[in-house]
Amino acid sequence: MKIVIDTMGGDNGSNATVGGILKFLESHKDVEIIAVGDEQELEPLKDKCKIIASSSILPMECSVMQAMRDKQSSMYKAIDALLNENADAIVSSGSTGAFLSLNTLKVKKIDGVLRPALITPFPTKIKGKYTVLLDIGASTENKPEELAQFAKMGQAYCKAVYDNPHPNFYIVSNGAEEGKGTPLTKEAYQICKDYEGFKGYIEGRYIFNGDVDVAVFDGFTGNVFLKGCEGLAKTMSLMIKEAFTSSTSSKIGYLFAKKGFTSFKETMDYKKVGGALLIGVNKIAVKAHGNSTPDSFKCAIEIAYKLAKHDAVNQIKKEFVQ
Amino acid sequence: MKIVIDTMGGDNGSNATVGGILKFLESHKDVEIIAVGDEQELEPLKDKCKIIASSSILPMECSVMQAMRDKQSSMYKAIDALLNENADAIVSSGSTGAFLSLNTLKVKKIDGVLRPALITPFPTKIKGKYTVLLDIGASTENKPEELAQFAKMGQAYCKAVYDNPHPNFYIVSNGAEEGKGTPLTKEAYQICKDYEGFKGYIEGRYIFNGDVDVAVFDGFTGNVFLKGCEGLAKTMSLMIKEAFTSSTSSKIGYLFAKKGFTSFKETMDYKKVGGALLIGVNKIAVKAHGNSTPDSFKCAIEIAYKLAKHDAVNQIKKEFVQ
Repeated sequence: MKIVIDTMGGDNGSNATVGGILKFLESHKDVEIIAVGDEQELEPLKDKCKIIASSSILPMECSVMQAMRDKQSSMYKAIDALLNENADAIVSSGSTGAFLSLNTLKVKKIDGVLRPALITPFPTKIKGKYTVLLDIGASTENKPEELAQFAKMGQAYCKAVYDNPHPNFYIVSNGAEEGKGTPLTKEAYQICKDYEGFKGYIEGRYIFNGDVDVAVFDGFTGNVFLKGCEGLAKTMSLMIKEAFTSSTSSKIGYLFAKKGFTSFKETMDYKKVGGALLIGVNKIAVKAHGNSTPDSFKCAIEIAYKLAKHDAVNQIKKEFVQ
Repeated sequence: MKIVIDTMGGDNGSNATVGGILKFLESHKDVEIIAVGDEQELEPLKDKCKIIASSSILPMECSVMQAMRDKQSSMYKAIDALLNENADAIVSSGSTGAFLSLNTLKVKKIDGVLRPALITPFPTKIKGKYTVLLDIGASTENKPEELAQFAKMGQAYCKAVYDNPHPNFYIVSNGAEEGKGTPLTKEAYQICKDYEGFKGYIEGRYIFNGDVDVAVFDGFTGNVFLKGCEGLAKTMSLMIKEAFTSSTSSKIGYLFAKKGFTSFKETMDYKKVGGALLIGVNKIAVKAHGNSTPDSFKCAIEIAYKLAKHDAVNQIKKEFVQ
């Protein structure tokens, strides 16, 4: 297996990515890593990876034009390597916009797919059970047929990653009854009616119950929803920390309650999911968090690895055979 | 001051509302409560409130037609009392759809307001600081001009409820840069550019930072967002409880850390906000949570009381003088 890494684009640059690659390689001997970036900064990887030098970095806010023009950027060169070396997957913590553009234009959509989507798992109240959310921001506007395809891609993801043979799915709406929703969700509802696993609409509040395998949104709503939940989870985690450090008494309390909270932290740590998959293109394309740390970047590589192991791209292709 | 209460519609019926009214009256001697509902069930209120008997209850899922036709329902009669008795405010935990319809059709929109909106405060990481969110579900589709009006109504709410003379506002979008968003948010952005307090777009993740006074959404996105956050907050709170009860050691830990967590619980208790205001109609109309408890229903009455005290309807009218 070959995985290409764009090592440059994230907020923490090669500090996060080089560290993440080294951690990943400790436990995976069956993978060839192709690291693209500044040669000097990639020095620690020299004997462990194939290195491709690049001389520029795409900014986080980056137009399609700029992404396509700067052929020396680490991301452009990484996409080239993905194609030329016939690698299985690419991972980047760089500009989401550029990552979408380059994958769509150069790696290209799977035949029959109308729009690729960004998909990510989110923890639920049941430990180890994730709900996958899509689209969380590859598009800003969608057609009903695209929403229906997102459902199928989400199910393919669950089959590949969680070995779940019959994943269910819901369309997220402002109420559970069929009459609710926007014209977009209403039309999507009608298309999905006969799809296997379709459970109807779901309200935002029930998504984390642990019963939902796939939650389908248009890209704008999904993005606002996911970021809101990430923000709130972070805020609440900070407040828990503050509650435990607010007095000597509460610090002692932490020593006693620590074990219970380790499990809580593990369940809610959304950084552990590492990033989002751009689903619907011809390669496994994982967009790691822009503010990745070595640990979360390692998780992003793990996701790419797992998806490649499960031959996820072909699994999805099967769903879209015309 | 007169406040009309529809005592019947919520999930917990008059158990929640009668209890809430009694609690509210303990600390407010300057308010006349007009309670509408089943005479027998309202027996405990007999000497404390004016009681109007009603013989039916609108179901939670209720069409506009049904809401307008059933003139014996507690909600219809409560709206009638609001108008006939020239009361200041109405509070109901019944059907949101019916509440919107009856208020819009009978109490009517403020002149110049295109669409009323549901507005609610949400706690942030700064204790005591709330961000108000609107629209959280009065509409499912909106026009750019409506979003711009939501901003003004949200600011009027902050002025009235929080004595904040210069509230800022943001339009919620999938990125902070001006070029982001849907056609709807882009047009709204252009309209709002010269509005006092406009800070541009905000991503979902930063809404709870404590810097945001008003966050503007279309009704569908706002509904999905708010319910998602409520669901997640509830899930995380349950997990904290589980963490503290998972072992004898963690139970001991709770005894030590209790004080810190009381403050945390108070900050994050969104039920304390009691409900949402239907802003933009000619009376103060508070929709309490469907699953209100006596305590949260009391909070909903408190909100109505506070808004009436601050003459919120006239404050909003001032913003829309043609």
